[in-house]
Amino acid sequence: MNEAAITLDGWYVLHDLRSMDWASWKLISKEERQAATDEFLVYLEKLQKADDDKTGGHAFYTIIGQKADFMLMTLRPTMDELQELEAEFNKLAIADFTVPAYSYVSVVELSNYLAGESTEDPYQNPHVRARLYPELQRSQYICFYPMDKKRDGDDNWYMLDMDKRKALMRDHSMIGRSYAGKVKQIISGSVGFDDYEWAVTLFSDDVLQFKKLIYEMRFDEVSARYGEFGSFFVGTILDGDKKASFFNM
Amino acid sequence: MNEAAITLDGWYVLHDLRSMDWASWKLISKEERQAATDEFLVYLEKLQKADDDKTGGHAFYTIIGQKADFMLMTLRPTMDELQELEAEFNKLAIADFTVPAYSYVSVVELSNYLAGESTEDPYQNPHVRARLYPELQRSQYICFYPMDKKRDGDDNWYMLDMDKRKALMRDHSMIGRSYAGKVKQIISGSVGFDDYEWAVTLFSDDVLQFKKLIYEMRFDEVSARYGEFGSFFVGTILDGDKKASFFNM
Amino acid sequence: MNEAAITLDGWYVLHDLRSMDWASWKLISKEERQAATDEFLVYLEKLQKADDDKTGGHAFYTIIGQKADFMLMTLRPTMDELQELEAEFNKLAIADFTVPAYSYVSVVELSNYLAGESTEDPYQNPHVRARLYPELQRSQYICFYPMDKKRDGDDNWYMLDMDKRKALMRDHSMIGRSYAGKVKQIISGSVGFDDYEWAVTLFSDDVLQFKKLIYEMRFDEVSARYGEFGSFFVGTILDGDKKASFFNM
Amino acid sequence: MNEAAITLDGWYVLHDLRSMDWASWKLISKEERQAATDEFLVYLEKLQKADDDKTGGHAFYTIIGQKADFMLMTLRPTMDELQELEAEFNKLAIADFTVPAYSYVSVVELSNYLAGESTEDPYQNPHVRARLYPELQRSQYICFYPMDKKRDGDDNWYMLDMDKRKALMRDHSMIGRSYAGKVKQIISGSVGFDDYEWAVTLFSDDVLQFKKLIYEMRFDEVSARYGEFGSFFVGTILDGDKKASFFNM
Amino acid sequence: MNEAAITLDGWYVLHDLRSMDWASWKLISKEERQAATDEFLVYLEKLQKADDDKTGGHAFYTIIGQKADFMLMTLRPTMDELQELEAEFNKLAIADFTVPAYSYVSVVELSNYLAGESTEDPYQNPHVRARLYPELQRSQYICFYPMDKKRDGDDNWYMLDMDKRKALMRDHSMIGRSYAGKVKQIISGSVGFDDYEWAVTLFSDDVLQFKKLIYEMRFDEVSARYGEFGSFFVGTILDGDKKASFFNM
Repeated sequence: MNEAAITLDGWYVLHDLRSMDWASWKLISKEERQAATDEFLVYLEKLQKADDDKTGGHAFYTIIGQKADFMLMTLRPTMDELQELEAEFNKLAIADFTVPAYSYVSVVELSNYLAGESTEDPYQNPHVRARLYPELQRSQYICFYPMDKKRDGDDNWYMLDMDKRKALMRDHSMIGRSYAGKVKQIISGSVGFDDYEWAVTLFSDDVLQFKKLIYEMRFDEVSARYGEFGSFFVGTILDGDKKASFFNM
Repeated sequence: MNEAAITLDGWYVLHDLRSMDWASWKLISKEERQAATDEFLVYLEKLQKADDDKTGGHAFYTIIGQKADFMLMTLRPTMDELQELEAEFNKLAIADFTVPAYSYVSVVELSNYLAGESTEDPYQNPHVRARLYPELQRSQYICFYPMDKKRDGDDNWYMLDMDKRKALMRDHSMIGRSYAGKVKQIISGSVGFDDYEWAVTLFSDDVLQFKKLIYEMRFDEVSARYGEFGSFFVGTILDGDKKASFFNM
Repeated sequence: MNEAAITLDGWYVLHDLRSMDWASWKLISKEERQAATDEFLVYLEKLQKADDDKTGGHAFYTIIGQKADFMLMTLRPTMDELQELEAEFNKLAIADFTVPAYSYVSVVELSNYLAGESTEDPYQNPHVRARLYPELQRSQYICFYPMDKKRDGDDNWYMLDMDKRKALMRDHSMIGRSYAGKVKQIISGSVGFDDYEWAVTLFSDDVLQFKKLIYEMRFDEVSARYGEFGSFFVGTILDGDKKASFFNM
Repeated sequence: MNEAAITLDGWYVLHDLRSMDWASWKLISKEERQAATDEFLVYLEKLQKADDDKTGGHAFYTIIGQKADFMLMTLRPTMDELQELEAEFNKLAIADFTVPAYSYVSVVELSNYLAGESTEDPYQNPHVRARLYPELQRSQYICFYPMDKKRDGDDNWYMLDMDKRKALMRDHSMIGRSYAGKVKQIISGSVGFDDYEWAVTLFSDDVLQFKKLIYEMRFDEVSARYGEFGSFFVGTILDGDKKASFFNM
Repeated sequence: MNEAAITLDGWYVLHDLRSMDWASWKLISKEERQAATDEFLVYLEKLQKADDDKTGGHAFYTIIGQKADFMLMTLRPTMDELQELEAEFNKLAIADFTVPAYSYVSVVELSNYLAGESTEDPYQNPHVRARLYPELQRSQYICFYPMDKKRDGDDNWYMLDMDKRKALMRDHSMIGRSYAGKVKQIISGSVGFDDYEWAVTLFSDDVLQFKKLIYEMRFDEVSARYGEFGSFFVGTILDGDKKASFFNM
């Protein structure tokens, strides 16, 4: 039997991507649209309060292209809170004008591939905590995609021994580090929760850095031989007045 | 010809996952919603009675994310009873506000990989019976996914001889046992009944244990080389007042 | 060039699987539903007459789970008759409350892998005729799935020479024979007619025998290395009063 | 760099497969249905005129099973004419009662694998012209499917050298020739135009010959190792009174 | 770690493909259709102005077959502008009669595989700039498809060393150059932005050249062993009066 990776796990995460049914949205009166938008803004303010209180986090972006019109990403200490937020959203008037586009369930994760040895409880380490319970930046752009490690013939990540995996991950992480200050990333694990093994969420004020980072990594053995990727979603932030104007006809 | 695995088979199982058409649900009057909910609660009580009488079992959970809004899992001694429950559900008023999301047909199964030799009839063994006709726990969380054993080039489970398969399954089961008390699992076979070969249903009061168990198993050869997985669904229990409040607008 | 298998071909087969739009079905009056059901029963009686006259065959089952609500399987001497039955169904009132779920076009087929040498015309052999133009049993359960023989790297059925294929098929057929009296099977070929190469339709009064038969075969090299399977559909018979009561709200 | 095959290219081809929304079609009055059918018949007559004038071709068949209700195949000297015919169809009243099922864009193609050496312009050769600008037979049955040549590990058609490909294609074409008089085939290329590399359209008065031909070819190395197939569609001709009666309720 | 390719990146690109809901479009009055068309023409004029000002580019084509009715391709200096154009389109009246068919997000890209060594800033090179910020030709035909470089067993582009990739790309580009004057191509990178790694957009006044170019390339090792292709879309230009007449019923 092989040596399994050990994880530290933080906040649970729901990526909720929805398309607007713009034709129906235009059919109702300006007043109804305003009321529905206002109700949704109150919902978003409640989410923001959890960010402020550091009891959770959220991100709200419009997705470019037809895959979705917006993504609402929420982070909470329990899976139940995510379910409650989802149920609460479904009861909003604006929800009736949205169509489910994609969703993803995961939990913020750190693996032991890069961990040094230590006797202290990592959950008490402030650096670890900052990553497990991340304060989300209001970056201009977001990039989200789910991924697997391949198990295909000779390219089987899970049949590699721990030392080999550690060495490969060390090289891989060097690329990520070279983008420090330009791209912030959150890795969340989804084995048993959703159809891929991880979700990757990237934040940046320069959208081109997403492409540069991921393309550079693709030539690294971890991605080149072992990476399998789902759909990629890229978006720009809906903040300030944009939150309302996006829904304004 | 290779030596086929032999199975013991218990109750038939239907996993029925549905999304709510919330927009239509909101369009009817509060009284109509209440009546439809009440009618559904009576249906659920009838299911519960079979649990109480040990003539079947059921589980009712809300699924996190867009894949479905709820899953109703039913277990019965015959396939016909599952069909009757499904037909009965379709006649409920609430059914008109649901959209099929996914379903899975299987039968609770024990294989002979781990069985000792015995001359007694296993169907009379109380330990075996408790697993073939399981009393479902009201755990806080559920995890459900279908799976296959791979038949791909050199990674072909069905071309391995019985001794090799037994040895691999023994190692694999050790991981499962280490989660005893934390995760309860039901394996049901679906060859000839549905698109994958098995369904796995896990119950736990700690949702993170699903991820830990399945991730640890993924490094074991049985999963690493031979496991192929369908969609994963994770949910939280709808019990007590939650059964009604979930549908309350 | 390899030696192609030769087939004997019998009746053409249409598997027609449909879901009911129950919500719309409930919206019309009880009288309208009754009239539509009665009209459909007359259609089914006409199908039965072809069974009685041995000019064709049909089977009518409800499918367990969300894949379909019912399957109507029809067999006729020509493809044109299948098309006419399909067109006639579409003109029925009940058709407007059905949604296409899946269909499959094939022709009952016997291959020469297991045939002895003979100088007589096999189409005059009563045993052969009984299999090419089968009298369908009214078994309690049905199982239907399409399948291919794999052409993937070293696992390429069509690159094996005839003697190897014959030997493999001989072993494979031994499993099928051991289920004689428990499961009756119809193999129909669909190369050029539909997306897989064959359809398999099984009948039994014990639904568990489907799983036992197919699972046992999966360990045999023909399935283990060369079998590729589409969706599996399992159903229970709609006969007698059930034909009408299934549609009764 | 490998030696690419050279093609001769004839008429552009659109396979347009549509399902009828029978429920909506029944909802309008008999007179409206008649008017819409008549308008469509005029459209079909115009298509026939191009056949008569040898300025194009068309075929109109009903497809067996749920994949589509009918296929309209049109051939024209330019891609623009296909687009105009499509746009014209969309403006017909009957179009509003059709649902897109599948379509395919290609151009009639002859490859140089089987060509002898010649100094003359092949586009002036009457035998070549008869194949590039084919007069479509009004056969009873049609079979249509798209296909690729595989590029998968050791089974990579495009990495074979020209002589090997020529030898394989020569053997392959021998099978096709043995069906001369029974099956007529049109090969059209779709690289850059649609999702597969070729479309194959077969015509015959004996539907079983489609299966016999394609099955026999599957044991030939070109198909066995290098063929990848899309969906198969089989249909019966809608000619004479059937053109109108098909839409008659 | 392997040596990653370096890219130059120009304008961001959105390929937006939509189908018309012709049945609904016919339901509104001629005046409403005219008003909606006029409003859309104003939108297109605004796009044209960006072309004229060299602050962006756009292309508007009707797609042959059922995949889409039209494609609107827009190029802009920032991702945000693409999002704004998309949002603006969604607010147009005509948008309510369109159905999303496919979209693709990318950025015009030049790789360093073919670059000579230079000390100057390539972004100041007029030849480079002409390719990164291309002036779109009003060619009669367009061809668009997304693609990946394969990572599958021994056919793994990303595990090749830089010199090998450079040599392969040099051969590959020779084919492209032989089509100079006949086909103009824009390569845009989409790693991190959409589901494939690149989008290819070809323009020509002879639609057959798309097929000839791509088919010839398919025999070249870069495509034969390493190319993986998504859907292909081919269209004819909507310019002048065609812009309005396309929507005229």
